[in-house]
Amino acid sequence: MTLITEIESELMAFADRLADAAADAALPLFRNLPSIENKAAPGDFDPVTAADKAAETAMRTLITATYPDHGIIGEEHADVASQNGLNWVLDPIDGTRAFVAGMPVWGTLIALGDDQGPQIGIIAQPYIGERWAAGPSGGSFTDRSGTRPLTTSGCTQLDQATVMATHPAIFAGPGEWDSFQSVDAACQQVRWGGDCYQYGLLALGTVDLVVESSLQPFDVQALIPVVRAAGGVITNWSGDDASQGGQIIAAATPELHAAALKLLAPAAIG
Amino acid sequence: MTLITEIESELMAFADRLADAAADAALPLFRNLPSIENKAAPGDFDPVTAADKAAETAMRTLITATYPDHGIIGEEHADVASQNGLNWVLDPIDGTRAFVAGMPVWGTLIALGDDQGPQIGIIAQPYIGERWAAGPSGGSFTDRSGTRPLTTSGCTQLDQATVMATHPAIFAGPGEWDSFQSVDAACQQVRWGGDCYQYGLLALGTVDLVVESSLQPFDVQALIPVVRAAGGVITNWSGDDASQGGQIIAAATPELHAAALKLLAPAAIG
Repeated sequence: MTLITEIESELMAFADRLADAAADAALPLFRNLPSIENKAAPGDFDPVTAADKAAETAMRTLITATYPDHGIIGEEHADVASQNGLNWVLDPIDGTRAFVAGMPVWGTLIALGDDQGPQIGIIAQPYIGERWAAGPSGGSFTDRSGTRPLTTSGCTQLDQATVMATHPAIFAGPGEWDSFQSVDAACQQVRWGGDCYQYGLLALGTVDLVVESSLQPFDVQALIPVVRAAGGVITNWSGDDASQGGQIIAAATPELHAAALKLLAPAAIG
Repeated sequence: MTLITEIESELMAFADRLADAAADAALPLFRNLPSIENKAAPGDFDPVTAADKAAETAMRTLITATYPDHGIIGEEHADVASQNGLNWVLDPIDGTRAFVAGMPVWGTLIALGDDQGPQIGIIAQPYIGERWAAGPSGGSFTDRSGTRPLTTSGCTQLDQATVMATHPAIFAGPGEWDSFQSVDAACQQVRWGGDCYQYGLLALGTVDLVVESSLQPFDVQALIPVVRAAGGVITNWSGDDASQGGQIIAAATPELHAAALKLLAPAAIG
């Protein structure tokens, strides 16, 4: 039994507090950025980055005060070394381009991991009022209508699958676009524009497959416990550990994962 | 003064009732469709079409009971001829593919028009709890945090613009994809996956430009009053009346509209 398992409910409740703190910092700016005259030119003040930093600072302050021996890895500030092997991995606003465009598919990502990788994951969409939460003992989804367990669609065949990806531009590596196109062609349909939200939909069973590239560790670590708690599979394109980011595939079932992995293999670098 | 202007507030309140009725029919199925085993094969029962029809029937029943001399045009049932020149144009679930994928960017579209075209427009996203409403005297956006006026970003230059479109596959006509690509290249960024929601974001000022094709009249009529009430411009790719659908462009300002229209002109068929 790991330390995370021992005090899982305490840590899950604390992760919820972190998500609340991030929402307090980020939500006031959603659809409320300075007008066109003040749009950031290179080198200028960027209000979204400022919100991102403020939200991360709020979470770091809580972690340091409550668990001073835990490590912290985040997008906007320097790493804090762990004294006990546990690390929080934070992305206050995943999907900043969606945030800027007013699309409510960005999210706050919070992970807690040990030497076995991420064990607790939170995806929070505070504008809609949605939260996916998963730990060693399972996961749940909460929106304004209540809380329910996570479960994937059970889809095993590409020709019945809905695949999602954030944007064509993320497939920038050698052969990545061609490999994604072969998955797209094999699937029932592709939907674009998901960011972290699409992994949440996979864990609700409405999307069957997510294929992405160019992810950072803090983009993906919170997603891993959520996808797994729903019965899904998440790896890199070589079928190995997803926690370092890069090329990522998440699937509703092992069968669907294997079928898509074959098509992605020519471009896999993991 | 037209009949719609005379009783605008009564009609706006009634349109809200229509949106409520559509939500009652559609929301119970959102992220709650039959599982993979029951996915529709060609010719099989399609639960989304069933929800679409049920929602349209609910709205038609209300209209016929309240305004028996008004006409009705909808996606799922036969037209009802107008006795007084006013016509309701209904799309209970615009963005059925987003609905099926669990993405909350589908919407209920309700328009009321006369011989001058659509004068009242409603875009409702009932899962999030958002409603855009516009009539001859102006428009507003309501979400859980309150109600505010509609206003576009004021963006006048393509190189500062965020452009949105639902899906690459909608640009199926001759030259359409190339023309869209030239707009994409000129803009600051493109975001995919919006459906009707992206016109709502244009009216909130977070998206500057929407370019689409293959739209039906019932896909676009409710959007026209909303975009105009926000100070935006919406036409077909020839710069003419948008109300019959087809190739559609909506822009934050006349300047941005003109700049994008030049790039789309080679493929314009309007």
